Amino acid sequence: MNALFSEPAVLSSSQIPRGFAFASATCGLKASGAPDLALISSDVTAVAAAVFTANSVKAAPVLVSKEHLRASAQRVRAVIANSGNANCATGKQGLAAARATAAAAAREIGCAPEQVLVCSTGIIGVPLDVKRIVGSLPRLVKCQSNSPQAHAGVANAIITTDTRAKWAAATCRIGKKEVRVIGCAKGAGMIHPQMATMLGFVLTDAALSPSQAQRALERAAGITFNAISVDGDTSTNDSLILLANGTAGNPEIRSAGIHLRQFVKALESVCRELALMIVADGEGATRVAEIEVRGAPSDALAAHVARTVAGSSLVKTALAGADPNWGRILAAAGRAYWPKRASLDYSKAEIRLGGIVVCRRGQAHPFNEAAAHKKMSAQYVPILLDFKGGSGRAVMWTCDFTAGYVKINASYRT
Amino acid sequence: MNALFSEPAVLSSSQIPRGFAFASATCGLKASGAPDLALISSDVTAVAAAVFTANSVKAAPVLVSKEHLRASAQRVRAVIANSGNANCATGKQGLAAARATAAAAAREIGCAPEQVLVCSTGIIGVPLDVKRIVGSLPRLVKCQSNSPQAHAGVANAIITTDTRAKWAAATCRIGKKEVRVIGCAKGAGMIHPQMATMLGFVLTDAALSPSQAQRALERAAGITFNAISVDGDTSTNDSLILLANGTAGNPEIRSAGIHLRQFVKALESVCRELALMIVADGEGATRVAEIEVRGAPSDALAAHVARTVAGSSLVKTALAGADPNWGRILAAAGRAYWPKRASLDYSKAEIRLGGIVVCRRGQAHPFNEAAAHKKMSAQYVPILLDFKGGSGRAVMWTCDFTAGYVKINASYRT
Repeated sequence: MNALFSEPAVLSSSQIPRGFAFASATCGLKASGAPDLALISSDVTAVAAAVFTANSVKAAPVLVSKEHLRASAQRVRAVIANSGNANCATGKQGLAAARATAAAAAREIGCAPEQVLVCSTGIIGVPLDVKRIVGSLPRLVKCQSNSPQAHAGVANAIITTDTRAKWAAATCRIGKKEVRVIGCAKGAGMIHPQMATMLGFVLTDAALSPSQAQRALERAAGITFNAISVDGDTSTNDSLILLANGTAGNPEIRSAGIHLRQFVKALESVCRELALMIVADGEGATRVAEIEVRGAPSDALAAHVARTVAGSSLVKTALAGADPNWGRILAAAGRAYWPKRASLDYSKAEIRLGGIVVCRRGQAHPFNEAAAHKKMSAQYVPILLDFKGGSGRAVMWTCDFTAGYVKINASYRT
Repeated sequence: MNALFSEPAVLSSSQIPRGFAFASATCGLKASGAPDLALISSDVTAVAAAVFTANSVKAAPVLVSKEHLRASAQRVRAVIANSGNANCATGKQGLAAARATAAAAAREIGCAPEQVLVCSTGIIGVPLDVKRIVGSLPRLVKCQSNSPQAHAGVANAIITTDTRAKWAAATCRIGKKEVRVIGCAKGAGMIHPQMATMLGFVLTDAALSPSQAQRALERAAGITFNAISVDGDTSTNDSLILLANGTAGNPEIRSAGIHLRQFVKALESVCRELALMIVADGEGATRVAEIEVRGAPSDALAAHVARTVAGSSLVKTALAGADPNWGRILAAAGRAYWPKRASLDYSKAEIRLGGIVVCRRGQAHPFNEAAAHKKMSAQYVPILLDFKGGSGRAVMWTCDFTAGYVKINASYRT
């Protein structure tokens, strides 16, 4: 795995799935002049799977991409994404802008508009200046390349408050064929499960049926992008898209089995790396905590508790101060089940911070304060909450809550 | 109403309910040497009502006070409270400490132990040095007084990260008798409904039956203490206690009717003032927002949306920056109903910031940015989210999320 707190090393050409091309540009949506437009296309029609935000307020590109996935029976040619403007709460005009973006890309690529998916990220409620995108498209399509640098350019063009671009890669064998999986993602704020990712694009040259692609993506997202939290706010634009163009030449994966499992393992690896990079680059973050809940009556209960602890402002500020204040962890776990009263027994709960037992049987357990503080000062802090009562288990990742987060978000717009 | 951002003016003697006495002291639970022990007693047996935390992890004093309310049939003589230690996650030893505190107070006052309620607030998971409390009790009981200054002393002795003490008063007439209601409260962090109050003690000389006292308190708490949020973390120690000693001489209120309504109005006024003081003194807070949701299908739906908006880190940091970033309000409202999908229609939503319409029919509405920024810069910012779809309505109060909050909570313990 790449270092979490720095930009990943550039991929090698042999890691890039065959048959994809990338391009990015500055079209002027960001006042900073940073790149804000990205295109991913497949030389041949690719099977597409996607997971979108669970927010009831959905941005126009989310609605249009869902429409296009249905209309194309999950068989697409490209994804076009802009940063700097979320095209959300923009009404009919916003929907028209998203459709115009897809249509313009389709014209240049030479495919049907419904074979293009659209993503946007940035400020909510500001009309999207779609002419800037449409005007840049001919040039964008012309300068496409399948190089690792071009892929890094896409990763860089979709970021907003991120401090660095994020990508990851994995390979696996399916039958006799080597299959490649790469992905890039953006996200630093408004990050909370369902979907947590903001934007994520995962590409593979594996051949999968649409239903297996969707199944694999949902499974991977559940334990990676949906298992991270920066600030408890679920975005209106979250989109995770998988394109599988089959150019690896493996027999198409049409059902569960060893081939699907091999592919899912590689897919999960890429998704997990990207998700952790998002948490590590969480607005103002200086460290990442892995919140593992064990011994709960069910995985679902464990996940609910892990999510509540991961979202607690008091747990996250304690993490910022490398403070082994386990009482806040127990208190957050304790409020997890209101209004459905918990069937959880807190009297046997054990808490470990960086491996050090600080709470046993639901109460204080003597520990070396200095040693615990040192463990909490690491860039990656494992926190374990064990209810000692069942086989339910879940893992969530969160970052610390620093003054930097406030600084970034108290001055984002004005 | 008192100014929200300063300590309230000292009450006059004529506002203090008859038949109560107050005392406070430093017993050494706080390293700072600030007062940390408070006693409220009634000369005669008072009817007691209480609302406690909904956190599944409940502190020992909460468990013991619940026990005592049952055992005494809601008829008590005193409340003893300490700050500096929450006596939570302290096991059997913690329960014994809470019981010993009540027993020692009962001995000095001359009543049964179950006629004393116990409250604690402060750090979780550290054994309570109960000898310090027990040793201070004889002196504490001796120096009791019914003066406004002594009441202010109690308010001051229960605070932790609060920057100022909080109290409020109201009067009403019940039949031919003037009835007085006063209250004090503490709380600045780990503040989120169910219960939100941390500690609140409301005293009245009105005569009420136990069931009407409980009913009145629950009603008042629902729209005051349970309608505020500082950081989304529900404490393990929250306790709101009402003592009604009947010394005003009014005919006992035993059922619903005009007398109960008059009393509830005064009670709500005191509770609302105290709740708003808690939000205004929220850790690091510089301003308060009133989040009103209207036009929802039901009050319950409106309350759920209001609570989610009030708890959003992005809404609260925008408030810190006086940033009219209404997209964050809409996005928070949009995620309010996962996993129960909203039956809310966001397409007609209107948002007003300080009276200025910034969003209409779910999308951007042109507004004067400078004027909106000025409205958001006030100490009290009304935010209205109107779904234009029903008569459901709710109000929540929240404070801004500043670097000060992080500073306070990243360094609380170590």
